[in-house]
Amino acid sequence: MKDVQNSLDHRGITIQKVGVKDLHLPLLIVERAGDVQQVLANVTITANLPHQFKGTHMSRFIEVLMTWSRAGLSAKSFKKLLGEVRDKLAAQRVEINMEFKYFVGLVAPVSGSPSLLDVDCEFTASLYKERFDFILGVRLPFTSVCPCSKEISEYGAHNQRVLVTTRLRTRPGAYLWIEDVLDLLKDVGSCQVYPLLKREDEKYVTERAYENPKFVEDILRDSVLALRTEPRITWFEVHCESFESIHNHSVYAYHTESRKS
Amino acid sequence: MKDVQNSLDHRGITIQKVGVKDLHLPLLIVERAGDVQQVLANVTITANLPHQFKGTHMSRFIEVLMTWSRAGLSAKSFKKLLGEVRDKLAAQRVEINMEFKYFVGLVAPVSGSPSLLDVDCEFTASLYKERFDFILGVRLPFTSVCPCSKEISEYGAHNQRVLVTTRLRTRPGAYLWIEDVLDLLKDVGSCQVYPLLKREDEKYVTERAYENPKFVEDILRDSVLALRTEPRITWFEVHCESFESIHNHSVYAYHTESRKS
Amino acid sequence: MKDVQNSLDHRGITIQKVGVKDLHLPLLIVERAGDVQQVLANVTITANLPHQFKGTHMSRFIEVLMTWSRAGLSAKSFKKLLGEVRDKLAAQRVEINMEFKYFVGLVAPVSGSPSLLDVDCEFTASLYKERFDFILGVRLPFTSVCPCSKEISEYGAHNQRVLVTTRLRTRPGAYLWIEDVLDLLKDVGSCQVYPLLKREDEKYVTERAYENPKFVEDILRDSVLALRTEPRITWFEVHCESFESIHNHSVYAYHTESRKS
Amino acid sequence: MKDVQNSLDHRGITIQKVGVKDLHLPLLIVERAGDVQQVLANVTITANLPHQFKGTHMSRFIEVLMTWSRAGLSAKSFKKLLGEVRDKLAAQRVEINMEFKYFVGLVAPVSGSPSLLDVDCEFTASLYKERFDFILGVRLPFTSVCPCSKEISEYGAHNQRVLVTTRLRTRPGAYLWIEDVLDLLKDVGSCQVYPLLKREDEKYVTERAYENPKFVEDILRDSVLALRTEPRITWFEVHCESFESIHNHSVYAYHTESRKS
Repeated sequence: MKDVQNSLDHRGITIQKVGVKDLHLPLLIVERAGDVQQVLANVTITANLPHQFKGTHMSRFIEVLMTWSRAGLSAKSFKKLLGEVRDKLAAQRVEINMEFKYFVGLVAPVSGSPSLLDVDCEFTASLYKERFDFILGVRLPFTSVCPCSKEISEYGAHNQRVLVTTRLRTRPGAYLWIEDVLDLLKDVGSCQVYPLLKREDEKYVTERAYENPKFVEDILRDSVLALRTEPRITWFEVHCESFESIHNHSVYAYHTESRKS
Repeated sequence: MKDVQNSLDHRGITIQKVGVKDLHLPLLIVERAGDVQQVLANVTITANLPHQFKGTHMSRFIEVLMTWSRAGLSAKSFKKLLGEVRDKLAAQRVEINMEFKYFVGLVAPVSGSPSLLDVDCEFTASLYKERFDFILGVRLPFTSVCPCSKEISEYGAHNQRVLVTTRLRTRPGAYLWIEDVLDLLKDVGSCQVYPLLKREDEKYVTERAYENPKFVEDILRDSVLALRTEPRITWFEVHCESFESIHNHSVYAYHTESRKS
Repeated sequence: MKDVQNSLDHRGITIQKVGVKDLHLPLLIVERAGDVQQVLANVTITANLPHQFKGTHMSRFIEVLMTWSRAGLSAKSFKKLLGEVRDKLAAQRVEINMEFKYFVGLVAPVSGSPSLLDVDCEFTASLYKERFDFILGVRLPFTSVCPCSKEISEYGAHNQRVLVTTRLRTRPGAYLWIEDVLDLLKDVGSCQVYPLLKREDEKYVTERAYENPKFVEDILRDSVLALRTEPRITWFEVHCESFESIHNHSVYAYHTESRKS
Repeated sequence: MKDVQNSLDHRGITIQKVGVKDLHLPLLIVERAGDVQQVLANVTITANLPHQFKGTHMSRFIEVLMTWSRAGLSAKSFKKLLGEVRDKLAAQRVEINMEFKYFVGLVAPVSGSPSLLDVDCEFTASLYKERFDFILGVRLPFTSVCPCSKEISEYGAHNQRVLVTTRLRTRPGAYLWIEDVLDLLKDVGSCQVYPLLKREDEKYVTERAYENPKFVEDILRDSVLALRTEPRITWFEVHCESFESIHNHSVYAYHTESRKS
């Protein structure tokens, strides 16, 4: 049977990325505490395609992913996984992106009631020769109380849910766990949010947030300060989106910087 | 050229709805004030298919819609439009659903600054013999202040954006404008939201909302009371979804009822 | 601390549904083979609220769900889960909806290569007095080859991905597994789709689909015939959506019917 | 009334972007032929915030947009619009992104039947001192027939919808119209797609696509070759996503390059 993908191409264009996108898979993630958590991943995985080849053998991406579907994945695993993809496809550069909801146990601040918070996470890893690059992405929900609204109003202050999305790189050989990012950023909002709050917790969260009003600009700046305290981080970006309760649109802030490694 | 759609089918199943979905079109909507507003519509349009026919002539849906794309549409237009579709497809029952953002001019409550609020709307119309049915759907954004949070806290109160979605039918020959639904429901939240608020407006909205705390249950019940005051309405449903600022999930309430026409 | 939710309401409106929406949780589903599969669920859970009460105790929904998060859920479990929610909230009618991706192992038709297909599923259960209602929803992807395009063209035929969504009820005490629905419907498209296909499989799927052209109307009718063969089913609806490869919109068909139980 | 935004900040962080996101507005776009087309825009507009200021005056973004909502916008207009925003906010760098569906008239290839194709477009413009940057984004739908499937099968070939998304910059003072990008790329798929096709058109499209099979890699490479023919382009990227009809996932290819201006 003819291998059409393998036939010669004459356009002279090496494609930078070609592969599989929007593939849903259950995968296992190693937690900081050493356990393994199953997540539902949405995967994009690509390789470069040298100019002389007409096409990529797409099924090989799926084959490699299937063999890894029962292994506990951490930042480090991706170097090995991508090496296998590279070999199997005879490519030079390979890349994977996976998005997933990760659950972290929280206890309500007064009652101590336990619940599970869903955190949107993202791993992006690439391998080119011996150069391995890994970006960790974590999106955390907070509540924010508007300082202007509090200041100018006789009582009350508008507040809303804010999503803080951080993507970061670390120095070679060093990694951060998702839980490390939570620890770094847990105080950047007016208050954390929780899936389960009893009345005494709701009182605490309301008062705590009101005592601690923050613009989206404040949340961004406090995120930047927090990320700067972690010496393993060599680059980061932060997006803050606040779903304004007094408008039908969001307000948004963004910052990125590189740190000496 | 063979008309495959027109060939005989032997399975004996009359299909209730078959047609075109997720078709994007610019259409013109008549405003209450008599002007015409262009909207971007996402259209689903279907007809029944008698058991003896293998397929529908899908292109005819598009042809009819194209001829109507420059006409100002109101509830009443749909009877005529659907009649044309029914004739062109030799069907018994035809139905159209279109979703669109509709813009209404608002003025900020203190400064009077003008802006345009986007309101998600939906028209659903069907025609079967002489029976014409029309459902108007309108989704309005509000802010809501939590009464429990206000009561139990020393200061502050959590608040958030709430979407109130109403779908309603009117008695034969009577119609409501989108603007009529806004007038009926504009006070059901703790306060309205606005695209453009100056500082004096923000103070007003914050204080007004704090003075007027409402659970999602309150907003639902006040919507029900408001809709009951309009004698033209024979059936309605209301969905309220509140994007809680202290959680990463929503709270939700729903009610439907029929009214004597 | 005052229980504001518990205070008297004077509007006289019993709310039909109020609760929590868009809550993400890992849950365990019992498979037909007896194993348990972890899924990522998006949950809506509601209760009615008698007219005399101002509000619902939302945290109780979360508390019950947390206690069930490690139990293997099947259709039957929901009666017990909903009974607990009803008792805890002193409600008369309670309802849960959960949407999730469920994975089923497939083998490629010629090479036998194994892979995991993601299937969008939905459980909707309600309890009112002793009346328990359960709806199973399953969405399956297929490929469809257009019979008209094949007939009128010298060669080739346009084809595309189709999603077939079935929701069904069974007679009291009888249940269908997700895998049963797959077995019933696996042949309704021009061919099944697979995550992993080697070249010999791709040849098979292409030829099989071309030999078996089907309009969206055919897929709908064949789904209806297939569902009628299962005596446990008392009601079903089928939606077929075909993402046309020659258009930028979909074609769509719908049918529902009740069966004598 | 205190201007909290204007108060001093001591964290020393100049925020790179802060503003308004997910704002829906009707705007007017100048067409190549000189007419004006109303579109529904989703706008993000931001400015930098110098380190000494605590917050941004968000309402000013809305005020400027409102004054531009009746002007016909083209690439060139954005320099003036952004200049106004910069002055009003006393910022150094301002940026706008707007996404919208743009409609182009197509005629079916044989019958000549007219219809309107929806094309997802995006304008991204920024202004920093006198440096104005403008990126035009255009997403076009095609059909693609798989060359491997055609080659190895006795008859038929799987095909599907493909979206080709191009983002590009032009040399200073030169601009491309959306319609120019359509002209450049209209032949990169196996065939164009059309909203309205009569039977004779469907035969044409089916046969044309079958005679012209293309992998996602081919569509990407032909897009690259086409974009290289336009001397005004100084940078571009192309994403091709193919919604495979034999899988439940997509295949994807990406390429970017800079051209000497």
